[in-house]
Amino acid sequence: MSNYEQRLDVDLGDRSYPIYIGEGVYAETNHYKEAIPGRQVMVVSNETVAPLYLEQTLNALADFDVATCILPDGEQYKTLEMVNRIYSAMLEQRFTRQSTLVALGGGVIGDMTGFAAATYQRGVHFIQVPTTLLAQVDSSVGGKTGVNHPLGKNMIGAFYQPRLVLADTATLRTLDDRQFASGLAEVIKYGLIVDEPFFSWLEEHMDGLLARDPELLAYAIQVSCRCKADVVEADEKEAGQRALLNLGHTFGHAIETGMGYGEWLHGEAVATGMCMAADLSCRLGWMPQQDFDRTVQLIERAKLPITPPRALTPERFLELMAVDKKVMDGKLRLVLMNKIGQSLVTDDFDLKKLEQTLQHYAD
Amino acid sequence: MSNYEQRLDVDLGDRSYPIYIGEGVYAETNHYKEAIPGRQVMVVSNETVAPLYLEQTLNALADFDVATCILPDGEQYKTLEMVNRIYSAMLEQRFTRQSTLVALGGGVIGDMTGFAAATYQRGVHFIQVPTTLLAQVDSSVGGKTGVNHPLGKNMIGAFYQPRLVLADTATLRTLDDRQFASGLAEVIKYGLIVDEPFFSWLEEHMDGLLARDPELLAYAIQVSCRCKADVVEADEKEAGQRALLNLGHTFGHAIETGMGYGEWLHGEAVATGMCMAADLSCRLGWMPQQDFDRTVQLIERAKLPITPPRALTPERFLELMAVDKKVMDGKLRLVLMNKIGQSLVTDDFDLKKLEQTLQHYAD
Repeated sequence: MSNYEQRLDVDLGDRSYPIYIGEGVYAETNHYKEAIPGRQVMVVSNETVAPLYLEQTLNALADFDVATCILPDGEQYKTLEMVNRIYSAMLEQRFTRQSTLVALGGGVIGDMTGFAAATYQRGVHFIQVPTTLLAQVDSSVGGKTGVNHPLGKNMIGAFYQPRLVLADTATLRTLDDRQFASGLAEVIKYGLIVDEPFFSWLEEHMDGLLARDPELLAYAIQVSCRCKADVVEADEKEAGQRALLNLGHTFGHAIETGMGYGEWLHGEAVATGMCMAADLSCRLGWMPQQDFDRTVQLIERAKLPITPPRALTPERFLELMAVDKKVMDGKLRLVLMNKIGQSLVTDDFDLKKLEQTLQHYAD
Repeated sequence: MSNYEQRLDVDLGDRSYPIYIGEGVYAETNHYKEAIPGRQVMVVSNETVAPLYLEQTLNALADFDVATCILPDGEQYKTLEMVNRIYSAMLEQRFTRQSTLVALGGGVIGDMTGFAAATYQRGVHFIQVPTTLLAQVDSSVGGKTGVNHPLGKNMIGAFYQPRLVLADTATLRTLDDRQFASGLAEVIKYGLIVDEPFFSWLEEHMDGLLARDPELLAYAIQVSCRCKADVVEADEKEAGQRALLNLGHTFGHAIETGMGYGEWLHGEAVATGMCMAADLSCRLGWMPQQDFDRTVQLIERAKLPITPPRALTPERFLELMAVDKKVMDGKLRLVLMNKIGQSLVTDDFDLKKLEQTLQHYAD
């Protein structure tokens, strides 16, 4: 067992579960044994991740009846059709309600596998082994599962909690630089929305994180999951506080949808979206200029984009933002900031300032 | 308002909801107003039901922004593809999380619309207007939603509660005789599993029910929903007691699957399944012969089949029963009876007796 193994408990009553973080946690047989009640297990992965980590996962699951389902890799495959492939594989193997799905991969595999687990025979057991930084700090907590629809991102889904999450820092070494930076965007987000000291820690240790120091990574993952768990535990169904987690996401989804899924990585779109939210917060006189500068600088140091693609006009941005899930009865709600570490959800802001932000960034 | 209007409350904590039963309840504007929190409403119906009842439904919803989605009619259309049509219609109309889906139709429309409501943006509001007897006494309570998969019936789905159910006896007059009898199968089931006095009442009033007397119907629907609500309230996620509701269903699903969806109606298959469960209960020495005779006689009086199709061999039956959702880790669990009104879920029975029942019925 690694020196860095840490356990974090997500407290959701009878749906509580542990997250283990560290080197080698995904290969630990005991973690699976504690969490899997039946014998039937299916590992769902993709063509990129399976060659790297499937064998060791299957070794750790040697005591169970294990099947696998390997899907193509990419956000463009986050579809109902791929979920249907998981259903078919399970039905062909006569999987019962007592079976367990293990998601081995990034956010796409996690979201689809979770949705399959939520809806196969109205719910089977679910374990997440996120292999990207983004999935480790984002999908590990919150119970959001689902797929994209041609008319909108993440439009189909369910809230469904895993029984166990294994976030292994070893799997981050094989991530390409863009994917890694994309995960850092969400890490920075937690600092921005609720945790100024963590934001300062990130400013101090960004170089070590970019070098993928496992101890620094384990700490950053743990604080990120803790921040998200605090918000989610307080508000499981996103009535209020939970929406803070969407900082940068309304702008970001517009970028992702406008460019077609897969052109921009999720974290890249969120990174630029956070810059735009900071810009708007500044224009409204809420966030100090200095905090805006620190925000943009840290995002840029994490090798993330700080401006949207030129192809998007302000009009197109607004149009894309209006089908976002965070619109309540036609009013546009955004996550904005009073300062680093203090954010709010509001539809009470001057729309002209939003137009100025869009003009500034998208013209 | 009708003389027969009755209100039944299904008590599920913060997901409790009322069922209104009687003549004309689906056309009452106030029922909708009490239950719909936003402005966006989509009525989902099918090509058979819409010409009969859509106009009055839309009149009752005149104060909302209403769209419609009309699907083809039939169990063979209870698919993920049709649910995807509902998603597309909602996305094209820019439906938000605050929107409401109204299911106007039988069990297929109710199950699919409920599943769409459970999974559109991870959950929107849901109202059921069941227009068949089967849907009124079965789908009104329990929160089961979902679709079929080519490899198995009801294999994809979610538990999701409506905010309101309107069970209108007026809509039963346009039901064809087979559909109507299919609903009576489930009504008889409640007598068999938990309510001997109701079973006796049914023996006494079967002729009036077959003549579709609205007052008798309203009473039968109300008792049926009450029986089901009692079982479901005690055990929302089907850990134990709830499985009693599956009396006749394991045999019945084998008939439905074996014949291909749509050949036998659900209630017809359940009716025969209940006869087979009663036969097995008798062979095990649990149910008295006299109760078996009363069971078969009442089912036959309701114009329901009491023997399975000849095409199914005992071997095929067993094979089909083994993929049923009610199999726990390979052991076959069935709902059987000690007598009329007293049933149990068990995997502790002599499999030879099951083979005798299958030989008797399917050879």
